[in-house]
Amino acid sequence: MTIAEQIRTIAADARQASIAMAKLPTTAKNDLLMAMAMALISNTPHLIDENRKDLEAGEKKGLSSAMLDRLMLDEARIKTMADGLREVAGLPDPVGEVTRMWKRPNNLMVGKMRIPLGVIGIIYEARPNVTADAAALCLKAGNSVILRGGSEAIHSNLAIARILGEEMERAGIPKAALSVIPFPEREGVLEMLKREEFIDLIIPRGGESLIRFVVEHSKIPVIKHYKGVCHVFVDASADFDMAERIVVNGKVQRPGVCNALETLLVHKDVAETFIPRIAATLTDLKVELRGDDCVRQFAPQAKKATEEDWQAEYLELILAVRVVDDLDEAIDHINAYGSLHTEAIVTRDYHNSQRFIREVNSSTVLVNASTRFADGNQLGLGAEIGISTTKLHSFGPMGLEDLTTTKFIVYGDGQVRQ
Amino acid sequence: MTIAEQIRTIAADARQASIAMAKLPTTAKNDLLMAMAMALISNTPHLIDENRKDLEAGEKKGLSSAMLDRLMLDEARIKTMADGLREVAGLPDPVGEVTRMWKRPNNLMVGKMRIPLGVIGIIYEARPNVTADAAALCLKAGNSVILRGGSEAIHSNLAIARILGEEMERAGIPKAALSVIPFPEREGVLEMLKREEFIDLIIPRGGESLIRFVVEHSKIPVIKHYKGVCHVFVDASADFDMAERIVVNGKVQRPGVCNALETLLVHKDVAETFIPRIAATLTDLKVELRGDDCVRQFAPQAKKATEEDWQAEYLELILAVRVVDDLDEAIDHINAYGSLHTEAIVTRDYHNSQRFIREVNSSTVLVNASTRFADGNQLGLGAEIGISTTKLHSFGPMGLEDLTTTKFIVYGDGQVRQ
Repeated sequence: MTIAEQIRTIAADARQASIAMAKLPTTAKNDLLMAMAMALISNTPHLIDENRKDLEAGEKKGLSSAMLDRLMLDEARIKTMADGLREVAGLPDPVGEVTRMWKRPNNLMVGKMRIPLGVIGIIYEARPNVTADAAALCLKAGNSVILRGGSEAIHSNLAIARILGEEMERAGIPKAALSVIPFPEREGVLEMLKREEFIDLIIPRGGESLIRFVVEHSKIPVIKHYKGVCHVFVDASADFDMAERIVVNGKVQRPGVCNALETLLVHKDVAETFIPRIAATLTDLKVELRGDDCVRQFAPQAKKATEEDWQAEYLELILAVRVVDDLDEAIDHINAYGSLHTEAIVTRDYHNSQRFIREVNSSTVLVNASTRFADGNQLGLGAEIGISTTKLHSFGPMGLEDLTTTKFIVYGDGQVRQ
Repeated sequence: MTIAEQIRTIAADARQASIAMAKLPTTAKNDLLMAMAMALISNTPHLIDENRKDLEAGEKKGLSSAMLDRLMLDEARIKTMADGLREVAGLPDPVGEVTRMWKRPNNLMVGKMRIPLGVIGIIYEARPNVTADAAALCLKAGNSVILRGGSEAIHSNLAIARILGEEMERAGIPKAALSVIPFPEREGVLEMLKREEFIDLIIPRGGESLIRFVVEHSKIPVIKHYKGVCHVFVDASADFDMAERIVVNGKVQRPGVCNALETLLVHKDVAETFIPRIAATLTDLKVELRGDDCVRQFAPQAKKATEEDWQAEYLELILAVRVVDDLDEAIDHINAYGSLHTEAIVTRDYHNSQRFIREVNSSTVLVNASTRFADGNQLGLGAEIGISTTKLHSFGPMGLEDLTTTKFIVYGDGQVRQ
């Protein structure tokens, strides 16, 4: 069989298995996830052996030490994967929930019931832990899942899938509901992205170039997450201690992630008092500042910001800073340069807090809290399959519910249409 | 300017206008819709004049009488359009609704708030009434809308848009939030489908070939509705009077629509008693039957069904009939041949009714009611922008809520991440 034929078979079998997956009782899914966690632990030496093949090939290929670190599995990381499976087992099952039900004038009872999406494809980089994490979430939501991780992790991913698959077989659940594309060739991804008759959704997890590649080639709907140019607006009435805490947390706590702070907007009435203070703190913390003329007047250490700085997702210890006339100008700036990811206001003003919440239509909007909370776990979704910065289907951090859809259910007693 | 440049300008202006649309108070939107309804009525003679240009061109072009009928506007139809606008004005505004809110262990209050999608493109056939209907729903949900109707209705559509646009201007609402693509050329559609940076969603309304064309060429997410191969399963315990009423209503009341019944499945235990009866009734009503061998044994007038009959969306007075062993075989048949649109069971058996509701994952699933209820108005959504038979974002009849998404809102008091 050619690669195309094999991918077609994997996808068709996943579709067939999704019918059985959709019917699985919650307890069967939870028992499966717990058994999978046990199996990962008891197969630790085997997983480390298989992972070593990937690491050795990666070293030969000259992967960066950061990439090799993400690729590496050890006892602690395998335990973390197993804990992740157990955590998903503990989450409420979204399938079967009737989110609303109402009565029509003709006495029909009409409701909306959550059902699985069907077959979900996950395309990700060379991080073997994603294999277990993503599989767990998709299966718990009653879906089949097709995983295609970075080719550098192929031995690790196939080993994980084999171990998880054995537990499915033992539980009488069709193994085809979980598969790893076994080819390192890019052709495998391209063929997968064509199989719209079998696959309902593609979620790419990784850098912007991976996501653009998937979007460009997919005939299947893709949930996208391009970048996070997150803003904090320090209003005229802000508590400066709180504002400093939120700005520092947003920029410094973990600068390399998408919900880190990239641009600070300061109300002109407090520029003279707040900017010298926050600039000194950030400079002590090794943050490079890039500001407009007004900012540089109060923070001479700041470099001059250019148009590119307002658009930048630095992902490192650099912060763009701009002084704005008022809340309107802050919102205009966010509309012009933001990426619909996450924005926060620091204010004591009731009216401005409500306006910011209503009028800023990014996927997460916060009052008096750090942008770093824009995360499925932090917001209380239990676990996160990804973050969407486009509005269709899901917007913002995605949990189990986002791997489902709803159907209409109707209870009648013989009604026909007039 | 080339067509491409003009489409780009229309789309960019619609995106800019969507910021103002998202902030409009509900009363402003309702007042606008009421004023638009008045304006359509008071411009009736002008609309009829403009429509006459389309009708004359259509006659010259040799359009079928059915197409000319759909194209035609008269006083009654203009009044119906105006009533439609008033009806949408009366619907609850989905924007700003907080669907849920919960407290995190660190005291953050996290909620989900409905917001508009942004810019919606509607592509439809030569039916001028869709121009007003679709515009009303998109605007009420706080979106900008770009309309591209069938080129045969271009004068009518532009006249309607001009009248509605004047009311927007009078109300101080940016006119760019509602536009009709002014070119009859197909290039206009193709350019529109490329403008993913400005348009969030495309909804094609029309026949399967229009929808396939849009899906093939769109870089923007498309909500699709291919076809409705709807089933009724008459279970062994069914009340025959009820079953007959539901089958007749599904097939005969309006056979040309997507929620009409196409395939009847009958439990083998009642084939001998129910099939002669329903066959006689349907034959009296001029319905042609196509059955398997077992069906033809009890209804000799039925033609022999082929594999194509199980897949057919007849949209006319033809019904495929099959005898199945039990509920499982009925569900298997629906999974194999259905189009995820609408399926009903007629039964007195509690267990089977619950299994059918849970296990049939079409967009509308009914117990003891006609498939013809799979419709936004009938299910209580108020008005319908379309029906989706794919699962992403919306599944089944779509109302105002489906023209929105949700963002996360977070109220804090200085929380930062540990």
